[in-house]
Amino acid sequence: MTSKLPLLRKELFDIPKDIIYLDGNSLGPPIRGSTECADQVISDEWGQELIKAWNTAGWMSLPQTVGNQIAPVIGVSPDTVATGDTLSIKLYQALAAALSLRPDRRVLLSDAGNFPTDLYMAQGLIDTMDRGHKLRTPPPEEVLDSINERVAVVFLTHVDYRTGRVHDIEGITRRAHEVGAVTIWDLAHSAGAVPLSMESSHTEFAVGCTYKYLNGGPGAPAFIYVRPDIVTSITPALTGWLGHRDPFAMELKYRPSASTERFRIGSPSIIQFKLLELAMRVWEDVDMAELRASSIALTSLFIEEIERRCPMLTLVTPRDPEQRGSQVSFASEHGYPIMQALIERGVIGDFRRPNIMRFGIAPLYLDENDIVKAAEILEEIMKNETWRESKYQQIKGVT
Amino acid sequence: MTSKLPLLRKELFDIPKDIIYLDGNSLGPPIRGSTECADQVISDEWGQELIKAWNTAGWMSLPQTVGNQIAPVIGVSPDTVATGDTLSIKLYQALAAALSLRPDRRVLLSDAGNFPTDLYMAQGLIDTMDRGHKLRTPPPEEVLDSINERVAVVFLTHVDYRTGRVHDIEGITRRAHEVGAVTIWDLAHSAGAVPLSMESSHTEFAVGCTYKYLNGGPGAPAFIYVRPDIVTSITPALTGWLGHRDPFAMELKYRPSASTERFRIGSPSIIQFKLLELAMRVWEDVDMAELRASSIALTSLFIEEIERRCPMLTLVTPRDPEQRGSQVSFASEHGYPIMQALIERGVIGDFRRPNIMRFGIAPLYLDENDIVKAAEILEEIMKNETWRESKYQQIKGVT
Repeated sequence: MTSKLPLLRKELFDIPKDIIYLDGNSLGPPIRGSTECADQVISDEWGQELIKAWNTAGWMSLPQTVGNQIAPVIGVSPDTVATGDTLSIKLYQALAAALSLRPDRRVLLSDAGNFPTDLYMAQGLIDTMDRGHKLRTPPPEEVLDSINERVAVVFLTHVDYRTGRVHDIEGITRRAHEVGAVTIWDLAHSAGAVPLSMESSHTEFAVGCTYKYLNGGPGAPAFIYVRPDIVTSITPALTGWLGHRDPFAMELKYRPSASTERFRIGSPSIIQFKLLELAMRVWEDVDMAELRASSIALTSLFIEEIERRCPMLTLVTPRDPEQRGSQVSFASEHGYPIMQALIERGVIGDFRRPNIMRFGIAPLYLDENDIVKAAEILEEIMKNETWRESKYQQIKGVT
Repeated sequence: MTSKLPLLRKELFDIPKDIIYLDGNSLGPPIRGSTECADQVISDEWGQELIKAWNTAGWMSLPQTVGNQIAPVIGVSPDTVATGDTLSIKLYQALAAALSLRPDRRVLLSDAGNFPTDLYMAQGLIDTMDRGHKLRTPPPEEVLDSINERVAVVFLTHVDYRTGRVHDIEGITRRAHEVGAVTIWDLAHSAGAVPLSMESSHTEFAVGCTYKYLNGGPGAPAFIYVRPDIVTSITPALTGWLGHRDPFAMELKYRPSASTERFRIGSPSIIQFKLLELAMRVWEDVDMAELRASSIALTSLFIEEIERRCPMLTLVTPRDPEQRGSQVSFASEHGYPIMQALIERGVIGDFRRPNIMRFGIAPLYLDENDIVKAAEILEEIMKNETWRESKYQQIKGVT
């Protein structure tokens, strides 16, 4: 139980000593040096350079810099990732672009397990366009068979936010392309959690957020990957001035940037971007295969420990490690108070209605001792039913 | 020259001693205490509370808190302002909502002086909708006469970003409503610069950014005001999960929040929001009429000093103080190198192609001595033509 896993980097994080943090799938912890980073951008750049910092401190190109830090983590080439805004907005851009690429098709295919904002943004786009598009949300296991020639775009979240079940990116993308559909992969629960090869999947688009396994901080900017061969054929739906070819020409007509940068919209949130830039440096020497090996070892151990100690809980995450991300979820009708009791004991996971307890396993700051200790605490809570006494403070994690 | 203007609050700002900052219309300077604020949110909230901070540190309601700080500054009631994203996105939401309120009309009326991103976002919406809408951009002085029964929405930036000329909010809104058009006012260069009474104007929408005269920081969140009587009749075009009536129900179908909060989209940029919350506290005891009086005194003094000392420069800002915001612009064919020479001497304004030098006058941190000193330095640069030797480093301020 004391073997050091290859990817353990606890010293990079500032996690309180008495906490076992199993919610990095919702909000990753701060990288050490984050306060100094914020001090520097506020005092030295904003404070000293003022407006000049857009150039002298590299603010203007920061979204591109960060995009190039994200690129290797999701398995794509440099200069193919635009960053900024939120995942909802980046997905909207991808969906609108996908529909513009397939003007004669009317079906948007997702699944009933997708994170709701993805479905809401799609429905909002459909309503704005008002041209008879339909959103289909079959159960996740029926997606592959639902892909046909009427489908304009297949958009799915790779790792299910509740169960941790993974979709087959390669297989679904291949099937979609066979029938002429465009694909968008939402990597919210994948980036920094599992190895990704988005370029070799040939998907047209991928989107994601950076505040989960990438540890960019609350409300950190989102990203969009666009397959390079289609970039110049797309005029984004949200045509902001920073996506213009020459923003400071202040032209009345929009002319998109020649690159993926055309997916930029308005002013980047510089302080969040600087914190994200710092957090992304961690990934420069992370071997994703090693990370995956650690993740599988830890999630397997967690499943084994909990099932042995707490047989009344029901595993809802796939038992086959190939079929899950870096998260383990258990169902219980008492899931909400049990999670509250765990949090009171310093084991932080989260709860998703109606009955799911989620535990994110981030190998950069968790080891086998943490996993066993968390399982022991959960066992005590279940055996003694101390969850019946827990305070019912709602934890509303932004997934 | 040493009389203290009523609104001077230099002690609240951390501006370098050798700088006269005349670019707060592009990026306001940091409020003193900003680094401590960032430290606290990063170390104590994100670092210690981790995911729990969404509740324990009030992150979830922060956009609403900040909206209520902005409300009095733009002259509207509490709980009518939603915050987040960028101004481009908030304008898109307002435009889409306006068109949904006037489904039988096809003209979007703005003007050729509007900030380009507003026009780009409108054109992007028109293209996405693809229902024959047209964007009209007459010269600013012809807007009033261009408002007719074919116009669905009039959207204008109140204070022109180049010239500082103000539009007549009351008059244009009244004319628009007479013919059944909806209005959207972009307050980018107005909020924190001039007194505003958006509620009594009866405009349906107002949008703005917070990193100029409100000093929220680079990439600070934007805002949207929606007239309370129409909120519930609008389903926003960008329907993100945080605009849902019950985000954590994780429903497949979008049901908008009962309030203006339905204009929220995705995860708020918490660290930027905290800095903005700090900056907005300054406005709690600012009398906007006093601010306006100081602004007029300082802009008038600046015009007088520059015209006397530098007759070769051409004023492009209205001479009548009632017709201008808190900015003064001069034109010169050598505007770019002149501005560079000024910046090298510590007087920071900015340049807008083809020939405009902009000077933002923020009475909270500028006094008469600063204005005269800046004019003296500009006079020296013009007399000695030292601008011919200035380094040509492009200043790309985000307007």
